[in-house]
Amino acid sequence: MAMAGPVDFWFTMGSTYTYLAVMRLPAVEKASGIQFRWRPFHLLTLLQEMKHVPFAGKPAKIAYMWRDLDRRAAMHGIPIRVPAPYPLRDSLMANRVAILGLREGWGKEYVAAAYRRWFQQGQESGSEPNLSESIKEAGENPVRVLAVASSEEIAQVVERETNAARERGVFGSPTFAVNGELFWGDDRLEDAISWYRHGTVRPALATP
Amino acid sequence: MAMAGPVDFWFTMGSTYTYLAVMRLPAVEKASGIQFRWRPFHLLTLLQEMKHVPFAGKPAKIAYMWRDLDRRAAMHGIPIRVPAPYPLRDSLMANRVAILGLREGWGKEYVAAAYRRWFQQGQESGSEPNLSESIKEAGENPVRVLAVASSEEIAQVVERETNAARERGVFGSPTFAVNGELFWGDDRLEDAISWYRHGTVRPALATP
Repeated sequence: MAMAGPVDFWFTMGSTYTYLAVMRLPAVEKASGIQFRWRPFHLLTLLQEMKHVPFAGKPAKIAYMWRDLDRRAAMHGIPIRVPAPYPLRDSLMANRVAILGLREGWGKEYVAAAYRRWFQQGQESGSEPNLSESIKEAGENPVRVLAVASSEEIAQVVERETNAARERGVFGSPTFAVNGELFWGDDRLEDAISWYRHGTVRPALATP
Repeated sequence: MAMAGPVDFWFTMGSTYTYLAVMRLPAVEKASGIQFRWRPFHLLTLLQEMKHVPFAGKPAKIAYMWRDLDRRAAMHGIPIRVPAPYPLRDSLMANRVAILGLREGWGKEYVAAAYRRWFQQGQESGSEPNLSESIKEAGENPVRVLAVASSEEIAQVVERETNAARERGVFGSPTFAVNGELFWGDDRLEDAISWYRHGTVRPALATP
């Protein structure tokens, strides 16, 4: 069952597990030939609506998250330094810049740079110097970008995309949407690809 | 790196995703030669300490949970009827019976029967008729079992095991513990096996 449309990659810049997806996607897109549409949204709005606090006040769960991230990064051959600063003080600005960048064509480079700085150098995403340095790495002028990202127009795009995510049933990051079918978590990326190709989730072959 | 000890399978009878692990473990134990030590505990105690509500009041997340369970059950060839009754009104009694059964040697049969009734027939676990029917399926007398399960002695075992789970950093069900390394979720069972065998998480081979 061949599918024509792209896969929506819904993500928020404040999410830790999204680091793995951001690092993996370029190779996955190349190897699979599947086009992923990168769609940043502001997850915090939806978490507050659900009164959901993923990790704060849950020390056992947060300790597990870092360990799990560390193990899975190693599994994928992705460098990582944990714990990284968390939660972010300003994921909204990172989401604004990401959305602007994707509109202008340098978004993926910004997102990857911001995540590398956050998870490889311990430089908090969404705040300085991560913001300006990552914008520069994407080949743009931080003064211009931060001014436009702070505009009412971009605020409205963030809100519109967050509403679109909510309407589709998205509640976490990363989420892959394949013809209305949602797959939440970097660890469901293979399931999403299987669904795209076969309309079903096929089991992975056993680990050797 | 060969590991001698058994893998601890920490679980609570009120957990939905634990259905998949309970259905898969007998074949996994047989195929892998790894011994899993089934250890029920009362997760609700730990969730209340964390002020964590996994799904209530989160309609998008709960809708996703049923869909994800449905897809993954299909992937593993496990029958399932969703949504099943949730949350349970009395997971404590189910945990008490499971702990008693595992001490007396009929626990796995009870746990599997209670989960089959819950997820295949829509019969709520931890309440009647699921309790008595599942105890009978395990070859025991419900009157005797429910009396002993309600005793102070079993209450203390449940508390002791719940304390042991907390001390080991467990915060959800199912959790597989391999030499102090935790793997949370049925979807981490393969990672746990890989860790047991190799001391690392190896990637699964790509889905065909």
